[in-house]
Amino acid sequence: MTAFNFTLETTNGGARSGRIGTARGDIRTPAFMPVGTAGTVKAMFTDHVRATGADIVLGNTYHLMLRPTAERIAALGGLHQFMNWRRPILTDSGGFQVMSLSKLRKLTEDGVSFQSHIDGSRHMLTPERSIEIQCLLGADIQMQLDECPAIPIEHDKARASMELSLRWAERSKRAFEEKATPDQALFGIVQGANYEDLRRRSLDALMEIGFPGYSIGGLAVGEGRAEMFRVLEFTTPHMPPDKPRYLMGVGKPADIVGAVARGVDMFDCVAPTRSGRHGQAWTKAGPINIKNAAFADDAAPLDPESACPASRDYSKAYLHHLFKAGEYLGPMLLTWHNLHYYQELMAEMRSAIAAGRFADFVAGFTAATGETAV
Amino acid sequence: MTAFNFTLETTNGGARSGRIGTARGDIRTPAFMPVGTAGTVKAMFTDHVRATGADIVLGNTYHLMLRPTAERIAALGGLHQFMNWRRPILTDSGGFQVMSLSKLRKLTEDGVSFQSHIDGSRHMLTPERSIEIQCLLGADIQMQLDECPAIPIEHDKARASMELSLRWAERSKRAFEEKATPDQALFGIVQGANYEDLRRRSLDALMEIGFPGYSIGGLAVGEGRAEMFRVLEFTTPHMPPDKPRYLMGVGKPADIVGAVARGVDMFDCVAPTRSGRHGQAWTKAGPINIKNAAFADDAAPLDPESACPASRDYSKAYLHHLFKAGEYLGPMLLTWHNLHYYQELMAEMRSAIAAGRFADFVAGFTAATGETAV
Repeated sequence: MTAFNFTLETTNGGARSGRIGTARGDIRTPAFMPVGTAGTVKAMFTDHVRATGADIVLGNTYHLMLRPTAERIAALGGLHQFMNWRRPILTDSGGFQVMSLSKLRKLTEDGVSFQSHIDGSRHMLTPERSIEIQCLLGADIQMQLDECPAIPIEHDKARASMELSLRWAERSKRAFEEKATPDQALFGIVQGANYEDLRRRSLDALMEIGFPGYSIGGLAVGEGRAEMFRVLEFTTPHMPPDKPRYLMGVGKPADIVGAVARGVDMFDCVAPTRSGRHGQAWTKAGPINIKNAAFADDAAPLDPESACPASRDYSKAYLHHLFKAGEYLGPMLLTWHNLHYYQELMAEMRSAIAAGRFADFVAGFTAATGETAV
Repeated sequence: MTAFNFTLETTNGGARSGRIGTARGDIRTPAFMPVGTAGTVKAMFTDHVRATGADIVLGNTYHLMLRPTAERIAALGGLHQFMNWRRPILTDSGGFQVMSLSKLRKLTEDGVSFQSHIDGSRHMLTPERSIEIQCLLGADIQMQLDECPAIPIEHDKARASMELSLRWAERSKRAFEEKATPDQALFGIVQGANYEDLRRRSLDALMEIGFPGYSIGGLAVGEGRAEMFRVLEFTTPHMPPDKPRYLMGVGKPADIVGAVARGVDMFDCVAPTRSGRHGQAWTKAGPINIKNAAFADDAAPLDPESACPASRDYSKAYLHHLFKAGEYLGPMLLTWHNLHYYQELMAEMRSAIAAGRFADFVAGFTAATGETAV
């Protein structure tokens, strides 16, 4: 059984390329993880997810603990078998979505009590329970429970929240050491809002506890791209170079390109899947809305050169028609296209870093899309 | 270019197996045609439709003429290219759906005027316009415009309607001879409700006009299975043996098995796709509703022996979860499973007929599903 490991292969400026090894296969970094919220990457077959180039997908603890429940998934052989995805899975702790989706939540030192948004049932999520759930799911990479406040937030409140997350990090690690298998990994999560001193203190304390990987949480919560990049700039240079760095919940292509330039290795975001379901397609020239009347007679596919059937084998006029007619196939094709676009972007970045031409890649990306990523 | 042709290969009792040749490939009969209403077999990729064993799909003239319009599809290269399906396509005339879906419709000798159910726009469907649309779509097998009354209907009304359909058959054939390409085929449609004399008169008149194939219309409109079989029993024995016979809009598996026993070669129905979207799965032991709580912990797939990934690679518990969570993947997997079930049923019938053991097949089907098909 392969123990979790990370190999940093190349650096190019601040950007890094490497490889995470797990018992279920390697993850090439920088990596984008499609989000499989409720045990499915929405509107996608898993073999198509894999064919886009994804090495790992993400599952949401909050959704899965409520329905169909972690205990049921465990009894059915774990999340990999349940959703027919045999490669690595990363799970979040559930904390972020408890705070954004559940009802009547109450946060204490012990954890968060809340009511399900689905059926109103009462639940308690503690650091220990979150790890228990993630182990029942069988996640290869797990997250500590943390609190994730919105920005802006006052310094003393941000500090208190960050310190609570640190205490939860210790409890999470103890629970993980009891419950997890040797091939699984637990990441600590750096918090501290957009305060440099708090981010440093959070990171230093997490490194003292010791984790095989570090997440950066509490960003992409309303602070804007420039501010997010500023926080990365005073955070990543202090992170251990020999451990993977995961920027949680980020982002749009330009967010990812800019974060890779600042030394981040792993990403997840609902953007390609959610946007795809709503008719937005990313192209090499930037995003388009396929529902726009301009595409009704457009015989060209989204990308005639693509290796992805969804991008190559259907005209924009057809995709436009599918969305106008409310057909399932519209979201199916556009999600597939967008995930392929994201994975191709990651592959191009890995190649550019390996070849020592990442700055050229970024310049090309900005010129083609009009999006400033640095 | 292959001209449309039909080879009757084997008969076994009333059942027939054969092969329709078209410029876009052969159609093995008895054949089931998945319904691609608006230019897509709902929730399916065309390569999966093909992999289930489908040789041909059906497109709906009514839906396509309204959105995105036949002229637009023609400008984009025709329906095959539009929907990325390179094998044969059969289109209906639009008449049935004008009567069931449109608003403010008015039937005259000339045709049917109506308002679109989508945007209220006014249209006129005549025999000539229906053929024009089907040729713009590029359908390999086309249908004459007909009137399709519900059963029960009084004899004199059924006769008047059937005679109108005959006059429209002549006009359709003339229009087809002007507009169609030599490799396309037009079918006449036998009407006459459940009256033996009217069905015979309709068939005789159509044979006099002369068509390369004959449809049986006006069934599965509320008369029930036994009555439908009774109509087939006094209709198919008089149909020319060397031409394919298409029972329009039929049906559930037992309907199809019983109609094959009575000499029908071609079928279409929304049942496998529509039911799949609503959680019903056909299995070798009959239909089940996957939303039933009994399946929440069922680790077995729908069919562990199946060649279809949707039937084989996902537990019933997972499918249950997908439907409970309202995920796209539920309808995607169950539609795929159902279409595979239907195509496997057709393949088994073709083999049984070729081997001279169709009666055994029917007995086995009835024993396994509890459905009486003869």
